[in-house]
Amino acid sequence: MTEASNRRETENLQVQLQKVIHLLSKHKLMAGFVQMQEMPRHELTESLVQKQNLAELQQLLDKLHPADVAYILEALPLQDRLTIWDLVKAERDGEILLEASDAVRETLIAAMDGNELVAATEQLDADEIADLAPDLPRYVIDDVFQSLPVEEREQLRAAMSYPEDAVGALMDFDMVTIREDVTLEVVLRYLRRLDELPGHTDQMFVVDRNEHLKGVLPVNRLLVSDPDTEVAAVMSTEMLKLHPNDKAQQAAHAFERYDLVSASVVDAKGKLVGRVTVNAVMDFIREESENEALKLGGLSEEEDLFAPVWKSVKNRWVWLAVNLVTAFIASRVIGVFEDSIEKLVALAALMPIIAGIGGNSGNQTITMIVRALALGQLNPGNARKLFAKEIGVSAVNGMVWGSAVGLFAFFIYDSVGLGLVMALAMTLNLLLAASLGVLIPLVLQKLGRDPAAGSSVMITAVTDSGGFFIFLGLATIFLL
Amino acid sequence: MTEASNRRETENLQVQLQKVIHLLSKHKLMAGFVQMQEMPRHELTESLVQKQNLAELQQLLDKLHPADVAYILEALPLQDRLTIWDLVKAERDGEILLEASDAVRETLIAAMDGNELVAATEQLDADEIADLAPDLPRYVIDDVFQSLPVEEREQLRAAMSYPEDAVGALMDFDMVTIREDVTLEVVLRYLRRLDELPGHTDQMFVVDRNEHLKGVLPVNRLLVSDPDTEVAAVMSTEMLKLHPNDKAQQAAHAFERYDLVSASVVDAKGKLVGRVTVNAVMDFIREESENEALKLGGLSEEEDLFAPVWKSVKNRWVWLAVNLVTAFIASRVIGVFEDSIEKLVALAALMPIIAGIGGNSGNQTITMIVRALALGQLNPGNARKLFAKEIGVSAVNGMVWGSAVGLFAFFIYDSVGLGLVMALAMTLNLLLAASLGVLIPLVLQKLGRDPAAGSSVMITAVTDSGGFFIFLGLATIFLL
Repeated sequence: MTEASNRRETENLQVQLQKVIHLLSKHKLMAGFVQMQEMPRHELTESLVQKQNLAELQQLLDKLHPADVAYILEALPLQDRLTIWDLVKAERDGEILLEASDAVRETLIAAMDGNELVAATEQLDADEIADLAPDLPRYVIDDVFQSLPVEEREQLRAAMSYPEDAVGALMDFDMVTIREDVTLEVVLRYLRRLDELPGHTDQMFVVDRNEHLKGVLPVNRLLVSDPDTEVAAVMSTEMLKLHPNDKAQQAAHAFERYDLVSASVVDAKGKLVGRVTVNAVMDFIREESENEALKLGGLSEEEDLFAPVWKSVKNRWVWLAVNLVTAFIASRVIGVFEDSIEKLVALAALMPIIAGIGGNSGNQTITMIVRALALGQLNPGNARKLFAKEIGVSAVNGMVWGSAVGLFAFFIYDSVGLGLVMALAMTLNLLLAASLGVLIPLVLQKLGRDPAAGSSVMITAVTDSGGFFIFLGLATIFLL
Repeated sequence: MTEASNRRETENLQVQLQKVIHLLSKHKLMAGFVQMQEMPRHELTESLVQKQNLAELQQLLDKLHPADVAYILEALPLQDRLTIWDLVKAERDGEILLEASDAVRETLIAAMDGNELVAATEQLDADEIADLAPDLPRYVIDDVFQSLPVEEREQLRAAMSYPEDAVGALMDFDMVTIREDVTLEVVLRYLRRLDELPGHTDQMFVVDRNEHLKGVLPVNRLLVSDPDTEVAAVMSTEMLKLHPNDKAQQAAHAFERYDLVSASVVDAKGKLVGRVTVNAVMDFIREESENEALKLGGLSEEEDLFAPVWKSVKNRWVWLAVNLVTAFIASRVIGVFEDSIEKLVALAALMPIIAGIGGNSGNQTITMIVRALALGQLNPGNARKLFAKEIGVSAVNGMVWGSAVGLFAFFIYDSVGLGLVMALAMTLNLLLAASLGVLIPLVLQKLGRDPAAGSSVMITAVTDSGGFFIFLGLATIFLL
């Protein structure tokens, strides 16, 4: 890489993508031209220019980091994606598959045969193979498993046995372990015998004969200490010990709070079984926040930008169906009041306002509560206080926005009664939104469900049906 | 810390929070008791038990990491929070303020006088002071500025000059720099003269006399190489060089893609001015995703769980106001068709279904597009393809869900015409949702605005008003 090109790698990636697209389109143009002329595919003109384009593309790809190749593959429509995938050197396949998003990885794996998959997978570490495993055909995993040395087989078996949201799924096995009764000089000499240290080695793990973790020796302390000191004298015994079954979410919080680069993973008996590094944690955090955004947007999972239409339909239908059911219910609530609407048709025009603002306000409350629950900051001691606060906020909002919608109704329909009913309905629906905005996530949590999943849909359902009922009910009582 | 207590630090935090709450309530109970008995505050019984409780609390707090103290402060109602804040040792104030959320930090700073603030701030590094600066009174900053050595003054001035979303705002100045013409042995000896290395020192920066960055020496390479080698022979010249004005978002993507622990920041002339570390990047990523979640929930910014009611009202009113305006518009669209509704009141009950499903589907499209834009994976070459895909998806959905709502209308109201109009309106609104779901974020991006901000509100406004218009319009034409 030249000085100029590595200077702005962050911007460069999009430039690289443009280059790939440009070369691809030249390639396709030529292929089209050749076809138009009905020349046989092996004609000189084709082979020369074509090969030159492809060679240029390949050169470009070889220079890129696996993560960058994955990025480019994700940004290309399926056919172009597979053209590029064919150009990638086979020995890089595994690394690139690891970096690609689940949806795109699936399309790449579908284009490979069994031998290619085995070859690609074999080059990876046990923890990486475990990450790919769910997307690979069973026989590929079996083949790879057979080809691994015994120790790595055990690691793979272990790594595959943990659920995706457990520390065990984030962990790798690239630890440098040392003994406590040697001097730092010995440690330094031992390290020098290695070709390289595993990535993210910011500390060495001090273990006894039975591989029980006794402490950690930060590399930084190794570097500033007198080489004649013993490990035991400089090692730190205050360290984070994760368990493979701990929630990955908790580990992530610990990494953020304590600014860690790596942390040990020990089993119930205190034996060192692996480590978690900050890059795995960062990927986890990113994935979590993406999943949350997708859920809030009503998508079941991450979607390949260029997924076939039927696949996208499948990915989206669940939330649309849920939405349909709640909409049907709201519709029937309105249906009950059809007589009232017939007598005073203004109600039909005004009712969506009550429902809409209620939904918005309820979602504001829920966002606060879900966040506090995720951080574990809500407890019986302060839940009542929070509830009181949210009721207070919606009472104030009810007065402010209730007056606004009341005035709106009064000016449009010239009816004081309608204005007052609007204002009252607005206030009541905001109070309903606040109460359930606090209760729904708390109840979901109590039931052992994820309060983030679906609570927004539920609150909207309540404020829609509830808003219609309150408004039309009040109107029927007071205006008709 | 005992072995048992540090084993599960990740779970422990909530246990600590419970302990604090327990001790606090004992403390308050006793204070209340003392008051009830109308004993003077200095009575022996009070002072002994009270002091014991507070001492126990203080001991607990002293053992905790600053981030954990911040966590506990965030989880407490204002009065309790300030009681605890008073117990924290003054020399830890600065670190804890840094870790607290913006909203909570504000309440803590409000409880401190000028001298306390200056004392707390002075202990921090220049980049940390810059992080706190926006929340501090002007005269505190001035005082602190005067008290700094010249070099740090320059750093503080530099750090404060960058916008929050620039690399300059993430950067710190704790670099270890070395020269390329010395041997690793010399480097090792130089390091040993230091008391400790700055956190996250995974590489040393190789600079020339003018502090121009020539390369980096990873600590791991230093450890495995022969001490007689020269730095120039083992240093790496392929490294990420950030600029202080680069977008922090781009730096974050680079850290994720290339699994970095630290990266250099150089000015336009190639002079090393600072470094960015993975912990700053991780905090940035977390903040970004929280902000997105808050925005989607309709909150303007992070809110203190125990903010006073009026503060929460202020934090939420913008999105409620926007929502109100769009609701008023939708209401007027319905108003136009009041005659039709009066003739066929079923329309009032059915119209929210069309609007609701349209909004949900539009949000699905927007979620996809906003994500692709954020990753820079959308370009003129594939935008047309994406548009076609989204139209295809909504055409299929239109047929499926259109039939469902059509049948619903038919069964409830026993009218084939109404069923057909429902189905057609549903399909058209889904097509509208897909088109604008692609267009709105693209246009926002073209206008230099953040496509994530407000696009969800806009699409819902369009599918509401549009849905009402399409459905009521079709019904007026075909059914009346």
